[in-house]
Amino acid sequence: MFKKILIANRGEIALRVIRTCKEMGIKTVAVYSKADAESLHVRFADEAVCIGPAPSSESYLKMDRIIAAAEITNADGIHPGYGFLSENAKFSKLCEEHDIKFIGATSEMIEKMGDKATAKATMIAAGVPCIPGSEGILDTYEETEELAVEMGFPVMLKATAGGGGKGMRAVWKKEDLRDAWDSARMEAKASFGNDGMYMEKLIEEPRHIEIQVVGDAFGKACHLSERDCSVQRRHQKLTEETPSPFMTDELREKMGEAAVKAAEFIKYEGAGTVEFLVDKHRNFYFMEMNTRIQVEHPITEEVVDYDLIREQILVAAGVPISGKNYTPQLHSIECRINAEDPHNGFRPAPGKITSYHAPGGHGVRIDTHVYSGYMIPPNYDSMISKLIVTAQTREEAINKMKRALDEYVIEGVKTTIPFHRQLMDHPDYVAGNYTTKFMEDFDMKS
Amino acid sequence: MFKKILIANRGEIALRVIRTCKEMGIKTVAVYSKADAESLHVRFADEAVCIGPAPSSESYLKMDRIIAAAEITNADGIHPGYGFLSENAKFSKLCEEHDIKFIGATSEMIEKMGDKATAKATMIAAGVPCIPGSEGILDTYEETEELAVEMGFPVMLKATAGGGGKGMRAVWKKEDLRDAWDSARMEAKASFGNDGMYMEKLIEEPRHIEIQVVGDAFGKACHLSERDCSVQRRHQKLTEETPSPFMTDELREKMGEAAVKAAEFIKYEGAGTVEFLVDKHRNFYFMEMNTRIQVEHPITEEVVDYDLIREQILVAAGVPISGKNYTPQLHSIECRINAEDPHNGFRPAPGKITSYHAPGGHGVRIDTHVYSGYMIPPNYDSMISKLIVTAQTREEAINKMKRALDEYVIEGVKTTIPFHRQLMDHPDYVAGNYTTKFMEDFDMKS
Repeated sequence: MFKKILIANRGEIALRVIRTCKEMGIKTVAVYSKADAESLHVRFADEAVCIGPAPSSESYLKMDRIIAAAEITNADGIHPGYGFLSENAKFSKLCEEHDIKFIGATSEMIEKMGDKATAKATMIAAGVPCIPGSEGILDTYEETEELAVEMGFPVMLKATAGGGGKGMRAVWKKEDLRDAWDSARMEAKASFGNDGMYMEKLIEEPRHIEIQVVGDAFGKACHLSERDCSVQRRHQKLTEETPSPFMTDELREKMGEAAVKAAEFIKYEGAGTVEFLVDKHRNFYFMEMNTRIQVEHPITEEVVDYDLIREQILVAAGVPISGKNYTPQLHSIECRINAEDPHNGFRPAPGKITSYHAPGGHGVRIDTHVYSGYMIPPNYDSMISKLIVTAQTREEAINKMKRALDEYVIEGVKTTIPFHRQLMDHPDYVAGNYTTKFMEDFDMKS
Repeated sequence: MFKKILIANRGEIALRVIRTCKEMGIKTVAVYSKADAESLHVRFADEAVCIGPAPSSESYLKMDRIIAAAEITNADGIHPGYGFLSENAKFSKLCEEHDIKFIGATSEMIEKMGDKATAKATMIAAGVPCIPGSEGILDTYEETEELAVEMGFPVMLKATAGGGGKGMRAVWKKEDLRDAWDSARMEAKASFGNDGMYMEKLIEEPRHIEIQVVGDAFGKACHLSERDCSVQRRHQKLTEETPSPFMTDELREKMGEAAVKAAEFIKYEGAGTVEFLVDKHRNFYFMEMNTRIQVEHPITEEVVDYDLIREQILVAAGVPISGKNYTPQLHSIECRINAEDPHNGFRPAPGKITSYHAPGGHGVRIDTHVYSGYMIPPNYDSMISKLIVTAQTREEAINKMKRALDEYVIEGVKTTIPFHRQLMDHPDYVAGNYTTKFMEDFDMKS
């Protein structure tokens, strides 16, 4: 087992990892930028090393400084958290070379899953459903029509040089394909001087549903059920829940099986997430695999009643997993509390927290590195807290989230608490009737 | 279902009840003494009524004022919390008479279980094991010996006028009984001028283990397993855990069965607790039944994953219970954080909390009404917070409690945090090897 783990991250996830290490009797080393000297992750670690000034490129992304900090403090493991170096194959390899265990995926796995094309090819080889589409550029209309008929409508035509919706056409039936092909090419030519086109199956009413997997060094993997992360704004997740209101037992079994197949195919070690798009007919398609812990992992922990960071550390130490798949019995929701102004386009709102009091009681969990008097630096992601609630049913969990949001006191800066409070009352959210497009039509009330 | 509930209590339990009411969509009325105007339970209720000055006899025990507050605000239910009027038969009856539902036991049940002699007689009639003993004063030595042999040794002889250990003798075998009888009577005569003696079975290495029960209006009851509350100082519980480290599956089944029998015999409605003493041979004896929610109820909630206050409200509204007994899968521990100085005989230490920050993360729950800047009034019980942790095993729960205690910041007043931190390292506590005598030998390190 590890004796001392360096956490190559900041904020709530660094504190999260430190907490589990403490509970496991493992010493901890925090690294921090000058802007983060007052963060709780620095205060609660056994040792702390300043690795540079605020810009991440000068501190949290400085591989050599982090390795040096680990060597100076005799750390035998590095936990990368999420973001920063967590999916950096070079860093994973660097750790290996310095005989420090990287608590995450090997450089090989990261490379396999980090590149979209390689990941897709790997998943196809593993027999995991991917979004059907043309392989590269379509040469002729005839070829396009043949492929579209084979994939089934609707399809999406996309200009290879495209952007901002230009040269893009959704086509719902064969009769409309010819016109769409011609007009999209013309538009692409006019806009980009390039009329190269490719095609993908159009995912109707897409939901982002991901499966948490855990694999061990013995080639065994299991899944811990799903998380629905469809409530997103510009691809940023805002709130997540498990189980997904769209899930059925049958679909969970199929998606779980696919995710485990994916993990076992690449001999995945540790905690990982297989992200899928699910259409309105409950077809699901591989999007990507995250070879790290996710921001939203706590909702899974709350329903499975165990600690995923602990599981990562155990797997990295060579302990085999139990291998039991999980079927959810409870319902858990996470709201990401960001220092952003939801009434002003979610503009970041760093500054000093003048008053702070967290909600408590049954089924309420808080993961945060902030406190009364904390200065939120402007240099990083604006997430300052995760509020997680768990109850017997989705309806109870929503009601619990409302009362917890109402209790949460964060003064001095704007936060997304008012957004989440409105979300919890939104009829479509309450009905579980939302897709990744949900936020496009969301109106913040004043 | 209730429309509005008045909470006839203060502090954390008032806030606890308000939280559940909010989640159930029920309006709340707080009552408060002048000393409690700044408490969170007042801030979070929909309405708040001041019912008098600080002494409880002038406010929280003033039945007429509380009934008046309920009538003025149109509350259709009163939740009494614990302590104060929660087991007051007269108050329960008064609520009935005013057509306000008392969310607790009926006056009849409270009377049955409130008086020790009546409770014991009732339990004997129900077939629940009680501590064997003489019925009243023993007239002769012969009668005493006969009874002692029948009950089995060891026994405890006690002077009816006794106190401070005078006229008391533990007797471990028959051969010693005669001498003990003679000397105890002589001592009693000399000390109190009264040599009347009675006898009880001596409970060896007693543990306080209680069973949580829930009964409904249809005569059905179930149990939610045990709580071990043996760590007590002068009969005040300090920390509780479930499951008990002393428990076996067989004993749990027997004790659970006895508790359900007790509850069904008196047609108990709502959440209640049957307290037992368990000796080192795992014989168990009824002590008393608490006809209310207990301070330590959260550890049960954490392992059964549901809300006991909600259950109380549902039962009071006439909803039938599921009736399923519970076998624990997780381990939960509660530490009562009191404003007391553990280095100074646990002397109460009221005053202003100058800085407050609660621990968080996986498996950590906080129930408290205090915050940064809160003034702890000197008029009430010194408990200011309950820290509850839950994990897969007892060892993990103890480790989690240690790290949570280490994180907990309460400045400005002395608290029992240092005591709990030492307790979690005490070899006998860690081994689960403790009885109700444990604190007699506990030495606080400086």
